[in-house]
Amino acid sequence: MRTFQQVSPLRTYLREIRREGKIIGLVPTMGALHEGHLSLFRRARNDCDLVIGTVFVNPTQFGPNEDLDAYPRNLPKDMQLAAQEHVDALFVPTVEEMYPNGFQTTVHAGSLSADLEGKHRPGHFDGVVTVVAKLFNIVQADRAYFGQKDYQQFLVIDQMARDLNMPLDVVMLPTVREASGLALSSRNAYLQPDEKEAALVLYRALEASREAVAAGERSSATLEALLRQTLLSCHGVKVDYAVVRHPDTLEPLESLEDTSAAALLAVRVGRTRLLDNTLLTPPGVQPPRPMGHRTT
Amino acid sequence: MRTFQQVSPLRTYLREIRREGKIIGLVPTMGALHEGHLSLFRRARNDCDLVIGTVFVNPTQFGPNEDLDAYPRNLPKDMQLAAQEHVDALFVPTVEEMYPNGFQTTVHAGSLSADLEGKHRPGHFDGVVTVVAKLFNIVQADRAYFGQKDYQQFLVIDQMARDLNMPLDVVMLPTVREASGLALSSRNAYLQPDEKEAALVLYRALEASREAVAAGERSSATLEALLRQTLLSCHGVKVDYAVVRHPDTLEPLESLEDTSAAALLAVRVGRTRLLDNTLLTPPGVQPPRPMGHRTT
Repeated sequence: MRTFQQVSPLRTYLREIRREGKIIGLVPTMGALHEGHLSLFRRARNDCDLVIGTVFVNPTQFGPNEDLDAYPRNLPKDMQLAAQEHVDALFVPTVEEMYPNGFQTTVHAGSLSADLEGKHRPGHFDGVVTVVAKLFNIVQADRAYFGQKDYQQFLVIDQMARDLNMPLDVVMLPTVREASGLALSSRNAYLQPDEKEAALVLYRALEASREAVAAGERSSATLEALLRQTLLSCHGVKVDYAVVRHPDTLEPLESLEDTSAAALLAVRVGRTRLLDNTLLTPPGVQPPRPMGHRTT
Repeated sequence: MRTFQQVSPLRTYLREIRREGKIIGLVPTMGALHEGHLSLFRRARNDCDLVIGTVFVNPTQFGPNEDLDAYPRNLPKDMQLAAQEHVDALFVPTVEEMYPNGFQTTVHAGSLSADLEGKHRPGHFDGVVTVVAKLFNIVQADRAYFGQKDYQQFLVIDQMARDLNMPLDVVMLPTVREASGLALSSRNAYLQPDEKEAALVLYRALEASREAVAAGERSSATLEALLRQTLLSCHGVKVDYAVVRHPDTLEPLESLEDTSAAALLAVRVGRTRLLDNTLLTPPGVQPPRPMGHRTT
């Protein structure tokens, strides 16, 4: 596996590969790789001729009181895991390489980013779409892979790629979970044993909402009450949001009579903020639009 | 010459050409083509294997009280002129094709856009960099050509391309002028005969600043006073700005002892707003950094 810290040699390496007509798959990460990331590498390996991973803890998507400094970093381990998944090259830029002196142009996410994570983390999605636009342009990938765990992030990035006519497909893959149901996240490393136990309530709440829909419940308000009630049944869990929204627009929904939906959770367990989500598709209703888009 | 109104068939056309390894040159325009645009087509024709022109009067770069509706449009003439310059394909999208329902992601220009045109036309440069980013991504050109007449626009676009790691060179070509010295502009069509005569004062002011520098003047304040005095000597001319700035950063300069500079004018003649500029390079001083950048 090749590793690159600078844009220029990576471009040189990729130019030759592109000339050969190879399909390039990109997996952007912030490192601290876990099975969720590895599932993205595997899918990219399966779909593409060349797989590029990136490891970059992007400072511009962290707020001033967030966990930028504490965010787990383990590059040697990340390199080992990526190599084991037959990633062809890992791009590991410095902050200065990504944001050199004089850097000033940013990408701004729109209405999809206004609520939920965007509301709790002002500026977060602008940081995300700016760095992802840069990575898309650096690698000029044919496909880029993201996990469903960050569902709103996926929608915002997919919309960015379409709005700016970026010539690649943005692909979402299912959340990878521990046997317990806990969604894998690099931030799970922050959890104390008792907190990790408490964190299982996110999955239980999502399961409860799925079961309610299967049993005929169609009211978003009732489903949201169920999510919140399940979460709050667990001592020490604070709810940032627990909502049922339109799966494409994230706008509030009255009912799931005629539409599928996304149940989206953000909770704090101790000092750790955790996200999870599930799609809710009542029988006979159209599932959410196929994720990813094809522009090439 | 091929013409395309939609992104998808243009991409199909370009994909095959890119596979052949051809160098693609892009000349983005708002139409109402004049010799300035034609000089860009000619340079692209000379430098590249394939030349793509675009004609799109981008509504998002016009302010609410500006001349969007009045902006001159003459597509049949533009097509004829582009064909005469052996442009391979013209992309002429509708507003709906560029900004479909749900469009929401924008590019924001930074500090280079804050003053001068950015101050007089709030939001203008965000509209420019957003549409140019889209056009760059649609065409995936190797080089894009812009005129020096819109000097700040060139700097803002070049910075955008570098900040977002876009894999193309942005090239600036000299302003084309009438024999009288008047810089060609689609907006010159608004000028009445007496206004066109008055508009010559922009060139006279720039010439006066160049002559002063050649005669040894190095004070920006003195040069700015000279620009303003020359402009205001002409009845009916209103000055939006007449400044001498750093040629790369557009920041104010004390002196041209150790640096070249850009003299930048924006004036109103009747109801028409006109821009012009010149570079000022004292003998023995480094000329402005080579325009355009190479990332590919």
